[in-house]
Amino acid sequence: MFAGEYCNRNVSIIGRGDSIVKAAKLMREHHVGDLLVVESRNGERAPIGIITDRDIVVEVIAEEADMNEIVIEDVMSYKLITAHENDDLMNTIKRMRVNGVRRIPVVNQAGGLVGILSIDDILDVITEQLMDIDQIIVNEQKKEREIRPIISHH
Amino acid sequence: MFAGEYCNRNVSIIGRGDSIVKAAKLMREHHVGDLLVVESRNGERAPIGIITDRDIVVEVIAEEADMNEIVIEDVMSYKLITAHENDDLMNTIKRMRVNGVRRIPVVNQAGGLVGILSIDDILDVITEQLMDIDQIIVNEQKKEREIRPIISHH
Amino acid sequence: MFAGEYCNRNVSIIGRGDSIVKAAKLMREHHVGDLLVVESRNGERAPIGIITDRDIVVEVIAEEADMNEIVIEDVMSYKLITAHENDDLMNTIKRMRVNGVRRIPVVNQAGGLVGILSIDDILDVITEQLMDIDQIIVNEQKKEREIRPIISHH
Amino acid sequence: MFAGEYCNRNVSIIGRGDSIVKAAKLMREHHVGDLLVVESRNGERAPIGIITDRDIVVEVIAEEADMNEIVIEDVMSYKLITAHENDDLMNTIKRMRVNGVRRIPVVNQAGGLVGILSIDDILDVITEQLMDIDQIIVNEQKKEREIRPIISHH
Repeated sequence: MFAGEYCNRNVSIIGRGDSIVKAAKLMREHHVGDLLVVESRNGERAPIGIITDRDIVVEVIAEEADMNEIVIEDVMSYKLITAHENDDLMNTIKRMRVNGVRRIPVVNQAGGLVGILSIDDILDVITEQLMDIDQIIVNEQKKEREIRPIISHH
Repeated sequence: MFAGEYCNRNVSIIGRGDSIVKAAKLMREHHVGDLLVVESRNGERAPIGIITDRDIVVEVIAEEADMNEIVIEDVMSYKLITAHENDDLMNTIKRMRVNGVRRIPVVNQAGGLVGILSIDDILDVITEQLMDIDQIIVNEQKKEREIRPIISHH
Repeated sequence: MFAGEYCNRNVSIIGRGDSIVKAAKLMREHHVGDLLVVESRNGERAPIGIITDRDIVVEVIAEEADMNEIVIEDVMSYKLITAHENDDLMNTIKRMRVNGVRRIPVVNQAGGLVGILSIDDILDVITEQLMDIDQIIVNEQKKEREIRPIISHH
Repeated sequence: MFAGEYCNRNVSIIGRGDSIVKAAKLMREHHVGDLLVVESRNGERAPIGIITDRDIVVEVIAEEADMNEIVIEDVMSYKLITAHENDDLMNTIKRMRVNGVRRIPVVNQAGGLVGILSIDDILDVITEQLMDIDQIIVNEQKKEREIRPIISHH
């Protein structure tokens, strides 16, 4: 179970020099709450930051900043934590926990963007595992009914 | 969420004077791992003990006891913990935790047997809750797509 | 297990006529992503809507609306779904699922605000239940070690 | 996340020619519900079957078989499903589901026994993941409190 298997590969991106309004429009059109800020490096789209709908509200609107003077790189966090696509899923969850991040960009060997792994994706995995456990119990009983039919009375 | 709502009402029962072999046959025929030992009290079937397949192995066979001389009440545990059907599910789980029991008989006001609540039943509930959470996230996004169609470009 | 037991009673509120900037400032200061819009009814604070950081981004900024002309009631959703504090938790989760809402205000008999129940609160409950199940298994083995010491070899 | 990382390496074993009483005694002494039947192959202990406390009850006692004439290989299942220690955990769970088995022996490249993976072990993993998700949410809020102190009122 690797980060690259469970991340969402459908990522909405934006550039560091783009406007806050453009970010808001993308969030609305793509029905997402976060955008990955990427730049081109060696032909790969390298993630350099994340901007969320919350960042816009608390960094721009709450500060009464002039929306037309602010661009993505003024707001986004620079301490971006990334996971490698071959990173173990459990280790990646631990790193998200330590760093208190609900989502982590996943990159390939060349540093290029592969996808983004969020706690919603991990909840999906956990739910699937728990449904499997639940079904193992059901299937075990079903199997027993088949291989151990009613005992003969002799 | 009450113990009586989530317990399994399909309980296999046995009497305190019945033989170990009868218990084993019932466990085989009913495809269950435990039997509730009940006795009649005021017209209700009152649970007085539980006997599991494991009890038979470790108390009878491991001890090389004579199976024809041993009856249920020689083996069953007498310190039976029960839950009331109107007990809160979370409190019941806590009591199972404190007492280290994987299953607990559920009784009505008169002390009569209603069913048995096992950790398998509780796993069922947890799985359902987690599937609901997972689906809330999916439905929220679906709803947003409906109420917030693509923004018009003016 | 009732909605009122598990909801968060620490709710940040705002009035329908308040400004978007005030909402953003409250979200920043209180470290929350949503505010409950309330109005006074019969001496109770009755919830009439919710506004989230996301609403501000997609309804105000993405639409390039003039922030100084827009107040909370222009943006908030009016189809507010609420839960009663005595509502069964499982039923409340089902209603959240059907309506695709990540959070639901919880009210008392008089319609006054008690708290807000979010999927984060429900995840807390699920995690606690699963930890209890896990511990039941550990405690059962511990108990067996105590009541069934090493068999005597005769 | 691999089967070999999460399996229990503390396995109780028995030989195919051993008696049912010996199995019961081991189950009692080791506080386990199942024993792995192994035989020596190329210097490795290769698993060839599993016997559970339940097997003893339904195959031996319910059948009123003579306990002194029955040995392990008369009772154990021969269709043993095993997992490789480098098998993906999720795939292993799926195989347990399809085959309706609550536990699966884990072997190394040479076919030697590494451990046994049970649904109790998997529940442990799921619980840990869910606790991590829960803690990510708490840590994210804590982090926000640190990096976004109360806004200055100008």
